[in-house]
Amino acid sequence: MCLIWLYYFEIQGKKMVVKVYGAASASVNRVLICLIEKGIEFETVPVDLNKGENRNPEYLNLQPFGVVPVIQDGDYTLYESRAIIRYFAEKYKFQGTDLHGKSNEERGQVEQWLEVEAQNYHPHVYNLAIHILFASVLGFAPDEKLIQESEEKLAKVLDIYEDRLAKSKYLAGDFFSLADLSHIPFIHYLVGAIKKEYMIRSRKRVSCWWDDISNRPSWKKVLQL
Amino acid sequence: MCLIWLYYFEIQGKKMVVKVYGAASASVNRVLICLIEKGIEFETVPVDLNKGENRNPEYLNLQPFGVVPVIQDGDYTLYESRAIIRYFAEKYKFQGTDLHGKSNEERGQVEQWLEVEAQNYHPHVYNLAIHILFASVLGFAPDEKLIQESEEKLAKVLDIYEDRLAKSKYLAGDFFSLADLSHIPFIHYLVGAIKKEYMIRSRKRVSCWWDDISNRPSWKKVLQL
Repeated sequence: MCLIWLYYFEIQGKKMVVKVYGAASASVNRVLICLIEKGIEFETVPVDLNKGENRNPEYLNLQPFGVVPVIQDGDYTLYESRAIIRYFAEKYKFQGTDLHGKSNEERGQVEQWLEVEAQNYHPHVYNLAIHILFASVLGFAPDEKLIQESEEKLAKVLDIYEDRLAKSKYLAGDFFSLADLSHIPFIHYLVGAIKKEYMIRSRKRVSCWWDDISNRPSWKKVLQL
Repeated sequence: MCLIWLYYFEIQGKKMVVKVYGAASASVNRVLICLIEKGIEFETVPVDLNKGENRNPEYLNLQPFGVVPVIQDGDYTLYESRAIIRYFAEKYKFQGTDLHGKSNEERGQVEQWLEVEAQNYHPHVYNLAIHILFASVLGFAPDEKLIQESEEKLAKVLDIYEDRLAKSKYLAGDFFSLADLSHIPFIHYLVGAIKKEYMIRSRKRVSCWWDDISNRPSWKKVLQL
């Protein structure tokens, strides 16, 4: 399942690629987009959540909270998807797409909008995903009140994005960054399986932004995995 | 309200210090600890949440989500407390306490534990703070079921911290970092007004870690503001 061969290193003649432990999920895909944007070779190591492989002692030794993804870069282990994308963006700053911006001020804006994604956007779209897409699989009844509240709160967040995108092409400025990248997997759910595409399409600039970032070759490759 | 004079710059003879817009709150204090650790002069600009000053158009122009803090560093504006602390730790890497670690690998660990703070620790301790400390002020009845669930979930997170702190003195390694710093304001609530000090004291290493980080001069100065 290795995709990209632009970067690799060797130890005793053995090609070392980044290992990504995970299942098909938004947070794993966040990492994969980043690796492809940076031109970093990787292989995926499946973790079957249905079989509880994420609760095995071996896995908990890598990721004590029992969630995906985890990466191994040689003998270096890291978890939390947004920490992982920051790590690779920093380590390979001068390879592939520059995802942090060119100055400390630009990087500050990237960090601001990454935090907005994590703190303001993510909780609401996550609630929609859990209660609309996964409730029946996970064995509980969808909370209709929570769905309605989350949709209303997400709408207010997207209104702020609409204003922001009047000032710059992307969230952190006129450059594609980790902040935009980090939104892709859950907007994909929102416009697809969650069936709330109107939330994106009813906002002209958010709609153009989504068309732009979702048409990047990196995301198209992730969708083909 | 200026506290520290180790760093400043001048424009046309006028001393420029960092402005911190905010009220007495955990997220504002997170920023203030960082500024003091880095030796950055600042002044605070009060935002009275009770009077709704955070919903004034002037404030919303700085922070469209209407929350605190916001900083102004010269003509540069930034919000989201964890983005702000990353920005200053990066901008003044070689001044004051190095809060990001010395290598890309150390920085990755800092980012990982900052994300753990934001994603795993914060939501539960925030629920406890809102429902135990602020429910009556905010005019709603505390959700006792949520309080119990949050306490149980926070306990599991702190168990993982206990294991982690057997391997290194601080969360990201043997150095104090943004990851430790970011925990301080809400643990202060937890051991104080929330009256759940047992959650820290019943875990030997977490207890030592809290004694260490809460005794830093930076936090003592913030408490005196």
